[in-house]
Amino acid sequence: MQQRSEETRKKIMDAALRCFSRSGYDRSGVAEICTEAGVSKGAFYHHFSTKQTVFIQLLNQWLDDLDAQMAVSFENASSVPDAFDAITRMLPGVFAAAEERLPMFLEFWTQASRDPVIWEATIQPYHRYQQVFARALQAGVAEGSLSGVEPQLAARLLVAMAVGLLLQGALNPQGADWAETTRQGITFLLEGMRRPYESDNRSDRAHR
Amino acid sequence: MQQRSEETRKKIMDAALRCFSRSGYDRSGVAEICTEAGVSKGAFYHHFSTKQTVFIQLLNQWLDDLDAQMAVSFENASSVPDAFDAITRMLPGVFAAAEERLPMFLEFWTQASRDPVIWEATIQPYHRYQQVFARALQAGVAEGSLSGVEPQLAARLLVAMAVGLLLQGALNPQGADWAETTRQGITFLLEGMRRPYESDNRSDRAHR
Repeated sequence: MQQRSEETRKKIMDAALRCFSRSGYDRSGVAEICTEAGVSKGAFYHHFSTKQTVFIQLLNQWLDDLDAQMAVSFENASSVPDAFDAITRMLPGVFAAAEERLPMFLEFWTQASRDPVIWEATIQPYHRYQQVFARALQAGVAEGSLSGVEPQLAARLLVAMAVGLLLQGALNPQGADWAETTRQGITFLLEGMRRPYESDNRSDRAHR
Repeated sequence: MQQRSEETRKKIMDAALRCFSRSGYDRSGVAEICTEAGVSKGAFYHHFSTKQTVFIQLLNQWLDDLDAQMAVSFENASSVPDAFDAITRMLPGVFAAAEERLPMFLEFWTQASRDPVIWEATIQPYHRYQQVFARALQAGVAEGSLSGVEPQLAARLLVAMAVGLLLQGALNPQGADWAETTRQGITFLLEGMRRPYESDNRSDRAHR
């Protein structure tokens, strides 16, 4: 029973993602999502209080997946710069997902100034990645692989650059190799903070 | 007569900006803009073929103003890094304008995937600033004040970072001093490309 309920929930979320991608957030109603999922409105409202709830859970699911992938990169790398290198290898997948999803996020964001729940859901991921990157850069300073970094500022710049590139990539997928541009951008930003000599020492040590 | 026509045009654009800012792009109709401007629909359609035309002209007017200010900075500066310093002093004004205007741009952008005219209007400013910055960075390399720069890449990163920060600033104006963060970001990016010794020489020479 529990398992079937979980399956229904997943079916609704998958259907909502298809509807939002196809028709946009505003134009997709609960009725359309139910038809797409092949479930009743009763089943929908058993799992979600509104269309907005589904959207926020889709957003959080996507961010959780990204977080999990980044956590693996940070755990497996021998130094913080290596972890960022590993993260840049995730970028083609991130850009492919963003191209599909950003149009509906944009539409959702336009409501942020009018709706405090949407505003919170829109702002929260910025804080989240800001903190993830600031902690990573701080760890880089602590391990001696990075220097001359004000972690909060550098994290803010990384997040801003990534958001700007994701937005451009979603608007104009053919305009450039956006994943590669982002990889070069992250590399360029980190290059300015790198202490090559000590970093090499550290990563040697970590390998032994 | 010419002058009166120009005044009517300006009245309509000012009214449209107020309507779009207040009610959003989608919810503002030509009728509402005419009432706000105190002009007839006939007068509106004499100047603009659709609401979309007004919007695109508002966007271009804003970008033209920015371009004019940047051109002054580039002309008056003794070196390219100095010009970028001057541009960072424009940022508080840019962020104040963006905070007012970005919500309606976001709403407009959501239609970019469905409407080729909107898509073109959305993509074009990216190319424009990309080119402005790439030419400036190229000039910096030529005058010897910058080095180790791939101007196209660095320009792309500058634009992406600026767009990301403008978006965050518009979504969360109280979240940080966004103009100052952007100033530090530009400074940080340029720092990594700077050749301090030669740049000082050049700017000495330019002053003599």
